[in-house]
Amino acid sequence: MATVTPRRPSGFGEYLPHEQIEFNRLMDIIRGTYEKYGFVPLDTPVLELSGVLLAKEAGETSKQIYRFEHGRNDLSMRFDLTVPLARYVAEHEGQLAFPFRRYAIGKVYRAERAQAGRFREFYQADIDVIGSNSPIVDAEFPAIINEIFEKFKFGEFTIRINNRMVLNGFFEGIGLRASSKDVLRIVDKMEKITESELVSELKNIGLSDEQVADVLRFTAITGSNDEILEQLKQLDVRSELLDDGIAKLEALVRSLRTMGVPESRFKIDLKIARGLDYYTGTVYETVLDEHPEVGSVCSGGRYDDLASYYTNTSLPGVGISIGLSRLFYKLREAGIIEPTAQSPAKVVVMPLTENQIEDGLNVAALLREMGIATVLYTELDKVAKKLRYADRMGFGYVVLIGAQEAEAGTVSLKDMRTGKSLTIAKSDLASYIV
Amino acid sequence: MATVTPRRPSGFGEYLPHEQIEFNRLMDIIRGTYEKYGFVPLDTPVLELSGVLLAKEAGETSKQIYRFEHGRNDLSMRFDLTVPLARYVAEHEGQLAFPFRRYAIGKVYRAERAQAGRFREFYQADIDVIGSNSPIVDAEFPAIINEIFEKFKFGEFTIRINNRMVLNGFFEGIGLRASSKDVLRIVDKMEKITESELVSELKNIGLSDEQVADVLRFTAITGSNDEILEQLKQLDVRSELLDDGIAKLEALVRSLRTMGVPESRFKIDLKIARGLDYYTGTVYETVLDEHPEVGSVCSGGRYDDLASYYTNTSLPGVGISIGLSRLFYKLREAGIIEPTAQSPAKVVVMPLTENQIEDGLNVAALLREMGIATVLYTELDKVAKKLRYADRMGFGYVVLIGAQEAEAGTVSLKDMRTGKSLTIAKSDLASYIV
Repeated sequence: MATVTPRRPSGFGEYLPHEQIEFNRLMDIIRGTYEKYGFVPLDTPVLELSGVLLAKEAGETSKQIYRFEHGRNDLSMRFDLTVPLARYVAEHEGQLAFPFRRYAIGKVYRAERAQAGRFREFYQADIDVIGSNSPIVDAEFPAIINEIFEKFKFGEFTIRINNRMVLNGFFEGIGLRASSKDVLRIVDKMEKITESELVSELKNIGLSDEQVADVLRFTAITGSNDEILEQLKQLDVRSELLDDGIAKLEALVRSLRTMGVPESRFKIDLKIARGLDYYTGTVYETVLDEHPEVGSVCSGGRYDDLASYYTNTSLPGVGISIGLSRLFYKLREAGIIEPTAQSPAKVVVMPLTENQIEDGLNVAALLREMGIATVLYTELDKVAKKLRYADRMGFGYVVLIGAQEAEAGTVSLKDMRTGKSLTIAKSDLASYIV
Repeated sequence: MATVTPRRPSGFGEYLPHEQIEFNRLMDIIRGTYEKYGFVPLDTPVLELSGVLLAKEAGETSKQIYRFEHGRNDLSMRFDLTVPLARYVAEHEGQLAFPFRRYAIGKVYRAERAQAGRFREFYQADIDVIGSNSPIVDAEFPAIINEIFEKFKFGEFTIRINNRMVLNGFFEGIGLRASSKDVLRIVDKMEKITESELVSELKNIGLSDEQVADVLRFTAITGSNDEILEQLKQLDVRSELLDDGIAKLEALVRSLRTMGVPESRFKIDLKIARGLDYYTGTVYETVLDEHPEVGSVCSGGRYDDLASYYTNTSLPGVGISIGLSRLFYKLREAGIIEPTAQSPAKVVVMPLTENQIEDGLNVAALLREMGIATVLYTELDKVAKKLRYADRMGFGYVVLIGAQEAEAGTVSLKDMRTGKSLTIAKSDLASYIV
């Protein structure tokens, strides 16, 4: 007798079959693309030693850790895939070839306040190239994002690119070297606050009227990629860092063109800074043109040093992350993702009575041998109930085997889209199933 | 400056790239086969509410749970994939079509005493069919095991089959109905204890000399599948349950032949009982013929009721589980698994100097467009160092682009197995790469 209500802790989602099939299809696109670019799969433990995982003060995040004592261990569940990567690379440094290209698709845990679209367990899909200063590495990431989101078919999208050196170089040029981090933080939220709020925040941290005007003039630079680069070169404000940043941004644009990324899909945006201190060069954000409300669906950038807490080896790199669970949730809500298939199988084989069960086994084995994913329906229900099941599951084809068919070595094949049935030889099945 | 030693809690393993690539290849074989048989993917949370997960007293396992309080929640990490399946099916009962066929490949957690080959975080790869009493369902599992282990290429293997009804029916026939559970438990460890230990254990639970002799006579039945079935039918001990069990075992053997599972790969073994009380019909174990020391690599069976703690709906089913992490560890130790590839990419593209970097990007994009997984090597090292990297990573081909090649629209293609190089047009690359 049932005594316990089956339920989950809040913030811990799971999918129904048709959703899971679609979610896995998206994961497969990501994985396939990451591998095509030569990224190696990596899978680190979900639990880490707290002292190791939390070596670096994680700010807001540190309040959201699932942390507990077990025996003599102080353990924490990973909250992202970057810190475990840093730990991994430092731990196995001598056994890895650099530049080290890895991808990781896995669950991470944050004890956030539960609300719609915020999960406490969710998937991230990351790639990083570790141990290279080559600017050419930076160009591969937008090419990969382009390929993945093209395959996703969620409509047009824009990869916003920028370079922290351009921002910091400009701030340095107007005498804000010391406070450039604070200015960055404010610029980063420009799209979410009004201009007067922006001005007062900038003044609050000590900018002069002239400096505020400079910042506004700078972030107002728009146009095509070439136009923005041209305006940057024409600025009266100059610094070595700025020039270097502009050259890198220009090289990135050139490389993306060489790789065939459509010009409409990548766009220099000087307001992109990315929250984290962590980034030091190129930064990326990706928005769905028709669903800007989803926010950035894939972000990342270049950093100077991945694992300074764990190793003295300098490990510069570039990385991006797709927040797949959130993306899936938002696009399902917006009606962009509407999965229908309830089974990975295309065909269901249905023996009509007990006497045709062995024939059913045989036909199912035959279909699978031909590489066709097949369900053998084993219940001896009435035909109408059988067909309702087939319909509900969304199979493309139903193979019915009655006494007559079994006798003649044939089957009755029903195409569920057209509704048409025909009787064919078992051996001809493959040629009828598209 | 590095201040923290990068390390993991003991019992939490992770792989180096070449191992991970091989591990994923095995997971893909499992997943592909499960899907070919029409099993739906399912992914449940790693954390469950303790009150729900531990509704059923889990015996030994309950001491091994990672359990902790977080906020107002009492949480536990899943220790298998079966209890979460039971919770899932009960929770979403109304939205699922039965028989429900699902697969799950995921990590589970047990705080076991750490020792070689025992992990605290490890993968299980399960399939279950829920909501069917059809004996035909039982036949699909050995067919699936056969297909997976054939693809694994770990040498020959034997799927041992039995039926609890045969065991219980026989025990009932010799007047041991009440104690059949205890007899089962002792028979199950027959292969690990001596005959005299066995005899004294059976006597300890109250069996008469005659009953002990009957049990020994029964478990000594061997021969081909047909010979065993014949001997079972000729037994002077009889009960309805025994007859039913024999008929089911015979039907299973017939179905496996129909599905084309080689006779050498499945074998009735009356000593197989499987530890858990849970099973009520067919049971399976799989051993690698050349590596019996690994133990069973895939086990399972039929059960009467999956989720009685969560729902009053009767949910009979059949399931098997592959303990992939342990299998991988053992076969790696035995030298059966010796992975070499360090990258999913087949080709590495290497521009010789900075001037050929754009050409490199272009050629890499070309190769990927043709579906060839490719790494672009971005470091401007000497050629010898570049080739050392290519060799270490195990790429099949190296594409070198120098000034001459860039000028002529050609590349130098080196086949790393033969060591031979040739200069070819960029557009001919695909036809040279096997």
